Amino acid sequence: MFFRNWWDAGQKRYNAAMSGELELVRWMCAQQAAGQGVIRAGGDDLAVLQWAKEDLLLVGIDQILDGVHVDSQKHSARQIGRKAMNRNLSDCAAMACLPAAAVVSVALPRGSADSWAKELYSGLKEAADAFDCPIVGGDTASWKEKLALSVAILGRSAGVAPVLRSGAKPGDGIYVTGGLGGSILGRHLDFTPRIELARWLARQYPLSAMMDISDGLALDLRRLCRASGVGAVVEAKKVPIHADAQRLSATDGVEALFHALCDGEDHELLFTTAAAVDERSASRIGMICSGNNMELERAGSRGPLPAGGWEHGW
Amino acid sequence: MFFRNWWDAGQKRYNAAMSGELELVRWMCAQQAAGQGVIRAGGDDLAVLQWAKEDLLLVGIDQILDGVHVDSQKHSARQIGRKAMNRNLSDCAAMACLPAAAVVSVALPRGSADSWAKELYSGLKEAADAFDCPIVGGDTASWKEKLALSVAILGRSAGVAPVLRSGAKPGDGIYVTGGLGGSILGRHLDFTPRIELARWLARQYPLSAMMDISDGLALDLRRLCRASGVGAVVEAKKVPIHADAQRLSATDGVEALFHALCDGEDHELLFTTAAAVDERSASRIGMICSGNNMELERAGSRGPLPAGGWEHGW
Repeated sequence: MFFRNWWDAGQKRYNAAMSGELELVRWMCAQQAAGQGVIRAGGDDLAVLQWAKEDLLLVGIDQILDGVHVDSQKHSARQIGRKAMNRNLSDCAAMACLPAAAVVSVALPRGSADSWAKELYSGLKEAADAFDCPIVGGDTASWKEKLALSVAILGRSAGVAPVLRSGAKPGDGIYVTGGLGGSILGRHLDFTPRIELARWLARQYPLSAMMDISDGLALDLRRLCRASGVGAVVEAKKVPIHADAQRLSATDGVEALFHALCDGEDHELLFTTAAAVDERSASRIGMICSGNNMELERAGSRGPLPAGGWEHGW
Repeated sequence: MFFRNWWDAGQKRYNAAMSGELELVRWMCAQQAAGQGVIRAGGDDLAVLQWAKEDLLLVGIDQILDGVHVDSQKHSARQIGRKAMNRNLSDCAAMACLPAAAVVSVALPRGSADSWAKELYSGLKEAADAFDCPIVGGDTASWKEKLALSVAILGRSAGVAPVLRSGAKPGDGIYVTGGLGGSILGRHLDFTPRIELARWLARQYPLSAMMDISDGLALDLRRLCRASGVGAVVEAKKVPIHADAQRLSATDGVEALFHALCDGEDHELLFTTAAAVDERSASRIGMICSGNNMELERAGSRGPLPAGGWEHGW
């Protein structure tokens, strides 16, 4: 009787714990290929990594929330997983470091299908694999709310000094990679972190500051300038406008340049340097100035740079 | 007109972005004291750390969800923050490593007061400070759902080889620290990660396996045994029953031993070793066996170890 009562009381909880979340964790662990320097990944309270003595360690965390950064009614689990990992990989690009390992926490809506959770993880892994970044640990739980997904990433300097936001100097050129604006038409879900380009640029030129454009050029440039204690003048005609910004403009009537300046989630690089950068790699859009004015030059006259920026939500 | 329109359209988004989340991030960055090896914390896309060449790097992530691990109607923001950090610090104890740095992602319910968010962060920092663990980065957002909080932690081996779950051998003694059960009466919110004790034990004795008890002794011992490919016999009379388990038993009629075996969030250490451990440091509760049976010995007879475990939810 004694054991019987215990068994009955415990069995339900045990089944819940072992069959659902733990099964998923085991499946995730099984997916995990060993990466460079990974001594032990999955199955313990923490993963164990060997760190090369010549490397600086970089670390950050970024979250994806259903209804804010993604919409699980519209976007597939794989797309959401890819986006979550790529946002973190883009942070590595922003610092010109190589991704080294990632850990993931997932709060799944109660009743999520196992297949959905596995697709989510497959998206995370697919994006990470593209940069040889092993997922070395994680935490899953289910709850009554929507999907919340956090990825923490480790990067290593691997021969390139990290580029901070705080080194921009008056006279430096301001550069961006790619075209900007209109990412909401789809690019926000499927962008390529500019890791290789960032590291090539950092090797090739004396970059004074860099970040990735996640919340819109106008807002992110403002952050870079604040961190550096400088101002900026952006030339309207030099801002590279993505075809998506043009398309969006045609439907919403908002000028394409505004989309390029203020839309978020471009995940292109924004950097400053005193060097003349090859225009095939990046567009020079303006110049860093002393003071703290943020200006836009257009048709020969200057006004304030729009203060827009993406506030996560549509 | 041109600038005016832009300004109007952008200003609201800019204000939202700059005044709320960003202000909070700035405040958090300002709280951040430099830690050992921290070259750059906060303000960039990733934090930059110098890693000692003799250290192994350990990394993991753990989340706290409102309604699952905590109840924001009952628990203060500071308590929730402390718990979130302490769970991660307890993972460091589980591996016998020293915490080195943490990053935090917070999804706040829309409309949360700034003061509440700051209290949350203060709880995180208070717990981390107790172990000289700097919070070096974070991500905050708000949404329509409940609080979701993830902490990723980095640990360093600092002269003690990490203790995994997978090394338990037949004949090893099974030990636990502290008393178990009834953490729901309050200890789940306010426990001390056993970092110093874990490192002392790992230096003093040849530990074959270790973890922290987060989901209940019965379930966690099962995990340790599965990872090691062994079974176990636990002696009922040796299980250290916390006074909280007795108190809970008096109100719910469930035997205190059941609480000690099956309640979660004790965050004590569970470890195995062939050595005889000083009973002032830990209680020997049984022995590792070959095979995969999980048994409980009581009053001279053996039966299956209860399969219970905490499934996060009350």
